[in-house]
Amino acid sequence: MAKKIRLNLFDMNVIGHLAHGIWNHPSDERRRFNELSYWVELAQLAERGKFDAIFLADILGVCDIYQQSRDISVKTGMQVPANDPMLIVPAMAQATTHLSFAVTISTTYEHPFSLARRLSTLDHLTNGRVAWNIVTTAVTSAARNFGLSEVIQHDNRYDIADEFLEVCYKLWEGSWEDDAVVLENGIYADPAKVHEINHQGQYFKVEGPHLCEPSLQRTPVIYQAGNSDRGRKFAARHAECVFVGGTSVDAVRYYAQDIREKAKAYGRDPEQLLMFKGLNVVVGKTAGEARDKFEDYKKYWSAEGALAHFGGSTNLNLADYDPDEIFEYVETVGNQTHTAQYSKFGNKKRTVREVMEAIGDFGGSAGGANMVVGTPIEVADYIQHLVEETGIDGINLAQVTTPGTVKDFIELVLPELQNRGLVKEEYEEGSYRQKLFGGNGRLPDHHPGARFRKVGLAK
Amino acid sequence: MAKKIRLNLFDMNVIGHLAHGIWNHPSDERRRFNELSYWVELAQLAERGKFDAIFLADILGVCDIYQQSRDISVKTGMQVPANDPMLIVPAMAQATTHLSFAVTISTTYEHPFSLARRLSTLDHLTNGRVAWNIVTTAVTSAARNFGLSEVIQHDNRYDIADEFLEVCYKLWEGSWEDDAVVLENGIYADPAKVHEINHQGQYFKVEGPHLCEPSLQRTPVIYQAGNSDRGRKFAARHAECVFVGGTSVDAVRYYAQDIREKAKAYGRDPEQLLMFKGLNVVVGKTAGEARDKFEDYKKYWSAEGALAHFGGSTNLNLADYDPDEIFEYVETVGNQTHTAQYSKFGNKKRTVREVMEAIGDFGGSAGGANMVVGTPIEVADYIQHLVEETGIDGINLAQVTTPGTVKDFIELVLPELQNRGLVKEEYEEGSYRQKLFGGNGRLPDHHPGARFRKVGLAK
Repeated sequence: MAKKIRLNLFDMNVIGHLAHGIWNHPSDERRRFNELSYWVELAQLAERGKFDAIFLADILGVCDIYQQSRDISVKTGMQVPANDPMLIVPAMAQATTHLSFAVTISTTYEHPFSLARRLSTLDHLTNGRVAWNIVTTAVTSAARNFGLSEVIQHDNRYDIADEFLEVCYKLWEGSWEDDAVVLENGIYADPAKVHEINHQGQYFKVEGPHLCEPSLQRTPVIYQAGNSDRGRKFAARHAECVFVGGTSVDAVRYYAQDIREKAKAYGRDPEQLLMFKGLNVVVGKTAGEARDKFEDYKKYWSAEGALAHFGGSTNLNLADYDPDEIFEYVETVGNQTHTAQYSKFGNKKRTVREVMEAIGDFGGSAGGANMVVGTPIEVADYIQHLVEETGIDGINLAQVTTPGTVKDFIELVLPELQNRGLVKEEYEEGSYRQKLFGGNGRLPDHHPGARFRKVGLAK
Repeated sequence: MAKKIRLNLFDMNVIGHLAHGIWNHPSDERRRFNELSYWVELAQLAERGKFDAIFLADILGVCDIYQQSRDISVKTGMQVPANDPMLIVPAMAQATTHLSFAVTISTTYEHPFSLARRLSTLDHLTNGRVAWNIVTTAVTSAARNFGLSEVIQHDNRYDIADEFLEVCYKLWEGSWEDDAVVLENGIYADPAKVHEINHQGQYFKVEGPHLCEPSLQRTPVIYQAGNSDRGRKFAARHAECVFVGGTSVDAVRYYAQDIREKAKAYGRDPEQLLMFKGLNVVVGKTAGEARDKFEDYKKYWSAEGALAHFGGSTNLNLADYDPDEIFEYVETVGNQTHTAQYSKFGNKKRTVREVMEAIGDFGGSAGGANMVVGTPIEVADYIQHLVEETGIDGINLAQVTTPGTVKDFIELVLPELQNRGLVKEEYEEGSYRQKLFGGNGRLPDHHPGARFRKVGLAK
């Protein structure tokens, strides 16, 4: 297996990300999430473990669907508070050299002109170590925080996102030519090589020019994380990395293949889209040690936090259902239907009670990411199997405890993966895009952003 | 003189801030502005010099009024590029302990929900060392970058800003009670002590709750920098620190007094509003050395950059006037009229040519901030005189060269000011607000933000 598995650390600027309630474990340091030193130490640890990037999720409102209340979320610290994810990056970047940063930002509640400026600034400050995980934000409470009475309809959000990206590409790729910046003879830049973009679209009007000179990557590495059909189409057009959904091997394989096929239809090289899967790992030197850790963590796990999280993610209030009725919310994966997010149980019909038990099962898929518990060899086997069977390219390692999960992974799992030649021993040089894809670090020619490049154009 | 003069370092995330063209001086390091290390080193230097804060200006479009073109701005690097100011703060904060950060952000092109979250995040990460310099953005090119065909009318921008602040106060002061966060027995926070704000205003609808738990300052220290009558009213209501305009002693005194009187009318303690004035300093051990430095810098100074800057600040294209006509743009200061920004010449009528010469005069008020050139004693005399005659509280030291101006100031001027007892010898403990005003670091009761506090309220 020549291809190395990519390793991301999956996190969020919160006290409770996916391991609901476990901030309360005595070894856990997540209550320090408001402190810069917490993030700096975590970034340094991730770089010691040769992680490619820290992937930062985000949310713009409190999950308040389950039991029609946000009380469980607030009580358990389930993604409440949710601090801004971008502002922890500069200090982490200052403390590291190779680690990259994938930041989740919504196209629904930002303006492309200021967001493009922020991401260019960050790409400059990090020396090209930035990725943008694009979301369109389905959370209903977020809409009410931004002046809307309800969420913009799903496909329309992606239409807006498509145009949002077009504005960004124009600013990043087309506004400043490569040789616009002169820095000689008192001339900062050649005005003839800096261009307005004059975007006049359905949702945005942006004149430009872009307020930043070209950064190392120009366009940051583009991630996408939506799993709907429209979301996968969006990923197939724009994404260089995709955080795929599904928990069963079949579902993950289907999502990965489907996005690659859609990308091919858009004229892109499907092998230039890297697929990532979220994963929880509890590892011990022996099976018994792993099991003991798992049982210990489980004591702090909040099943109701998981139900509140599920409500926020799906807009379904399971508390409002008859526990004995058959749960009807399903998704189509290939030509099979599965109970959404819990398709690893196959496609058999399940009652609401069974679904709620599955969501609340710490050993199932805590926070929506698969859980693997075992020895280093067992965990490496699981990861190797998952990658080989699904065709994914990397994992987003969620943290059960912080920084315990990462420390354990680095100490126990990483050497086993390295011994098998499955992950790198050292970082490669260059920007994040160069580390992922080689080349000159710019968007490949097949990417839709590339067509907005201006080369040697007159003003 | 018991009151200590406050020292801010005045900067912007750009290659050319006010000393137009001087990035091209061989000793100047501003071309490193895209690098984190540049900002980290500057912050550490400022902290060695016991500066209270770095004050970061911002602009959201290219100045393109003068000669109806943005070519001079681009060519001379006059506030082009203009990177995001907030993203350099976390790394500077990580490298310092006491230095605070005043960041300019426009209420016209942000949303209060996400901005309040960013500022709370920053206040957490910096341990309460954040201020917000509120502007409403008059630059016309900025409007066209954000989908508007023209700038929102001046007073209306301030009406929006008033409501914007009300939303922020509700989120910062009223959403989370002081004892909402529990962090015991598996409880992160008490849901009954976290409140929606349910703001329904003319310009914004925001439900809440705020996504961040209370930071050390809750509301960051509020700066304001507008000089219009409506701008001064806004400052009188909201500001704790004001960056006042005017270049003559008379004008600065008038602005400071007028804002304090207006604040009194709003029921606030006028002595709790600190006034700052921008200043350029070129200092040498001898008068001759200072003069030589000044002449050396002057060789790199761009008078046309200054004219482009003036155009952007005033929306006046002086290139379009008859040079021999009397310049009619005046402002009323007290009961006298002065040519705007150049009132230090008194209120005599001047031709457009004379005004343009004054703007382009490096020795006049480079970039709109007064220029003082001399020995440490002369510079200290100037500052002492300015403070005593106008009643201001501090200066915003602009940089002629970077980091030369700051290094010279620390080496030569600071000891002289300290010897006179005019500035502090050591930092005080606490948040930025505590360093400025003492007390518990919260907004004072007379501040309009204080009335949104919830203490012990039921949900």
